[in-house]
Amino acid sequence: MAPPPSTPAVSPLVSLIIRVLTFVSLLISVIVIATNNSYVGDTKFKFDDFYAYRYMLATGVIGIAYTLLQTAFTIFFVSTGNRIGGDGLAFVDFYGDKALSYLLATGAAAGFGLTVDLNRGGSNGFLNKANAAASLLFLGFIFSAISSIFSSLSLPKRS
Amino acid sequence: MAPPPSTPAVSPLVSLIIRVLTFVSLLISVIVIATNNSYVGDTKFKFDDFYAYRYMLATGVIGIAYTLLQTAFTIFFVSTGNRIGGDGLAFVDFYGDKALSYLLATGAAAGFGLTVDLNRGGSNGFLNKANAAASLLFLGFIFSAISSIFSSLSLPKRS
Repeated sequence: MAPPPSTPAVSPLVSLIIRVLTFVSLLISVIVIATNNSYVGDTKFKFDDFYAYRYMLATGVIGIAYTLLQTAFTIFFVSTGNRIGGDGLAFVDFYGDKALSYLLATGAAAGFGLTVDLNRGGSNGFLNKANAAASLLFLGFIFSAISSIFSSLSLPKRS
Repeated sequence: MAPPPSTPAVSPLVSLIIRVLTFVSLLISVIVIATNNSYVGDTKFKFDDFYAYRYMLATGVIGIAYTLLQTAFTIFFVSTGNRIGGDGLAFVDFYGDKALSYLLATGAAAGFGLTVDLNRGGSNGFLNKANAAASLLFLGFIFSAISSIFSSLSLPKRS
């Protein structure tokens, strides 16, 4: 007989809620970054004037795509009780969640790293929005780190 | 009878080598950051003029302390074959390695996030050293991420 499939360490519903929270944080963060353009004195600044903010946007967008896919899989699991891919998928989750959480951590940190020092020239609407976007991205990172802990604990037993 | 203690997923020697590589990368990175002061035109810049570089230094120093401790434990394990703490320590390793790798990722990203955009004003010796330090910190992050994968795979079997 085949060994019983590994069971996730946490309820799939909890895992789903965390993924939805990740998705929402990233979506708002991406909207805030992408719409961030305002005048500081006479100069108009846009987010894509700075490499760090472009990188933030890129990590947010990748995060949204990945989280959507994972949410779809989890909804399928919650509604049917069948896990697509079995044990193999546990490793895909493990490495995918890990990689995504690192990506989001670097995105948020790059945004903060630039904003904090630009702020010393005096805060303004543009930098405040950049800070808000980085904070939301950081929140998305926290949720994705929780997903990553869950998927580590759900790894199949070693034989 | 007590259940057999969990065995690490990778040889302790490999794990030791990765920890030593983490330590060396972080040590050089910290030295490069902390000694980074040079004239750009007539103005003298020091790393602690920028919050992002101070944060980089802080993450590097915390990383060195953590890695030293883990290296000591691993050397003890390699030389005696006894794992201090048993299964409980596997979870300490898991969460500790995860937290450290996130911390180093944010340290390197914050450094890069600032440096990349400052560089657009023209590169100079100060920024080149900052870049070198961030690259080494990033290398330290890669090694710590490998340690984190190892300690995730070494988690004790769930019953």
